[in-house]
Amino acid sequence: MATNPILHPQARQHAHGEFSHEELALANRNCGTLLETLQHDITPTGAHYLLNHFDVPAVDNAQNWSLTLDGHFTEPVTVSLAELHAMPVTTKTVTLECAGNGRRHVSPRWPSQPWGVEAVGTAQWTGTPLRNLLLHAGIRDTCREIVFHGIDRGVDGGQVHNFARSLTPEDALHEEILLAWKMNGIDLPPQHGYPLRLVVPGWYGMASVKWLSHIEAIDYCFDGYQQTKTYVYRQSPDDSGTPVTHMRVKSLLVPPGIPDWSSRKRLVEPGLVTLQGRAWSGAGVPITRVEVGLDGTWQDATVDQCDNPYHWCNWHFDWQASIGQHLLSCRATDANGHTQPLQAPWDTAGFGNNSVHAVEVWCA
Amino acid sequence: MATNPILHPQARQHAHGEFSHEELALANRNCGTLLETLQHDITPTGAHYLLNHFDVPAVDNAQNWSLTLDGHFTEPVTVSLAELHAMPVTTKTVTLECAGNGRRHVSPRWPSQPWGVEAVGTAQWTGTPLRNLLLHAGIRDTCREIVFHGIDRGVDGGQVHNFARSLTPEDALHEEILLAWKMNGIDLPPQHGYPLRLVVPGWYGMASVKWLSHIEAIDYCFDGYQQTKTYVYRQSPDDSGTPVTHMRVKSLLVPPGIPDWSSRKRLVEPGLVTLQGRAWSGAGVPITRVEVGLDGTWQDATVDQCDNPYHWCNWHFDWQASIGQHLLSCRATDANGHTQPLQAPWDTAGFGNNSVHAVEVWCA
Repeated sequence: MATNPILHPQARQHAHGEFSHEELALANRNCGTLLETLQHDITPTGAHYLLNHFDVPAVDNAQNWSLTLDGHFTEPVTVSLAELHAMPVTTKTVTLECAGNGRRHVSPRWPSQPWGVEAVGTAQWTGTPLRNLLLHAGIRDTCREIVFHGIDRGVDGGQVHNFARSLTPEDALHEEILLAWKMNGIDLPPQHGYPLRLVVPGWYGMASVKWLSHIEAIDYCFDGYQQTKTYVYRQSPDDSGTPVTHMRVKSLLVPPGIPDWSSRKRLVEPGLVTLQGRAWSGAGVPITRVEVGLDGTWQDATVDQCDNPYHWCNWHFDWQASIGQHLLSCRATDANGHTQPLQAPWDTAGFGNNSVHAVEVWCA
Repeated sequence: MATNPILHPQARQHAHGEFSHEELALANRNCGTLLETLQHDITPTGAHYLLNHFDVPAVDNAQNWSLTLDGHFTEPVTVSLAELHAMPVTTKTVTLECAGNGRRHVSPRWPSQPWGVEAVGTAQWTGTPLRNLLLHAGIRDTCREIVFHGIDRGVDGGQVHNFARSLTPEDALHEEILLAWKMNGIDLPPQHGYPLRLVVPGWYGMASVKWLSHIEAIDYCFDGYQQTKTYVYRQSPDDSGTPVTHMRVKSLLVPPGIPDWSSRKRLVEPGLVTLQGRAWSGAGVPITRVEVGLDGTWQDATVDQCDNPYHWCNWHFDWQASIGQHLLSCRATDANGHTQPLQAPWDTAGFGNNSVHAVEVWCA
């Protein structure tokens, strides 16, 4: 009998050049945002990027949903959705980005979700602060990490598991973290975590566990697949590495003009073209500078003041387009002095590529 | 000065094997539906497939939107959105599929949107019947076709144009066609045509023009790019071909069990597995039969009666899964006697591939 390739997978190898059927299928399933929608402060519902490792669970009886807090809590508790909805409610505008954004521009390429630059979105999340619930349950001194378990289940690297991620108690108590049940004013769409999810502002998206059913306080370091096998910065596959956490400073340019259907190159007319885009940092500090690269020459753009460092800010720049071929880029700097690199930083699995966005534009 | 590749593109060639960056980018931008959501009669908003040739227009002042009917009408008219909303309103459940669905399984492959099987969705569209407005404007005897113009603009094959498609007066007067402004009870999302679109039940999705602003009755056959250069069945690039119109009979299987992250192969436990899926035909007739293929042996599934032939029906089948590797398929037949083929029908641009859906499942 043939070896089960799901439970006993072959080791993956880095790839070069064109993309496999598997990569293509992942790209089509987990869609990127539509860059033109970056004109909007809030990504239109349904145009936000999606990264679902496994299947979207079908939750038909949300009234039966419960969230259990157990393990090293002084007062373990199980709460219903109705009880959560009755807690203090707040709405936060948060920009989320996938840790693998930019992976397909890291060479050699790790054959996983082959993101370009589109794995980002901004939404208004409504829910209750996680902090209150954790304090109410009482985190014991013996607790080393708090694990957030989703109900979505599948296989990776031969391991069958539910998607789960952990945070230290200190990180989990951050006042910005939400238990959310609405996105842009409506119930969470199924594919965004219905009926309950975590939203961890400032962190790459894997921390924002969807279809959340169980919060477990443990007295050891969580070694789940999504915590230790992936989402770790490594120089090589054998490297013990460092965990992927906060989003690296990043910016995007709304492609100007009109697109060519197949190549997505852009066509503009000569003269004034107002470039616009977004910039963000996961460090919880403001963006202090955005520069636009015009065929290799960098000039400062105007950055709109951003009231909250947990969602992107807007920038714009007036460009005088001249006939011919151009390469437009943008590069952000945050208040910690971190600037985007021009080249993708090496990571063996393609995480954290916050190198500059470049758009090919033809003026005619 | 370099030749502008957008206005003077090189001729595209068929491809084999792995996928180009361009194909990958298109796959990530125009996302497929999530097959597990076929459990739902209505595809969750945001999980419906997307095919936008150009950019999603940003429409900030919808109250200024107007729909103009001109050309060979006896009473040309321009109506506002408010006037349209005041017309008789109806809601229709419609299954739409992209004409290029299945393209990447047609060999050799035409390098365009490389769909697998996921370019389908079912939504509840709310609007007013197009027929009433056309009769009110009065189609002149001199009218040969009615052109539907969107405001989305871009380039394909070197031609700059707005997306536009035509129908004959007879087809345009079909009572099922809607001018729609709501999707699943909410305003059309921007990426689905806000604030106004056409919905043409039974036809592949290109007929359902989004961001609709202008309906033009003409006295000749429309030769727009999206009418004559593409969306035509051709045996070879030089073939004059026949227009792509109604959806060919098709079915899909909800992949059972749990997925492997990277390969999307499925893992099930031994024993009873209830298979479920959807089937539809664009001919406006019911589905009469769905067969499930179990490792090459076909057996009849149970097809739920479908009250309306313009949206998919549900089918199910009880499978006794045994240890090992399996290939599961499904095949639909409609009331006109059309059955899905086992192999992709040849088309040089990969249109109309309604061959059977196959899913690799491992039982352990």
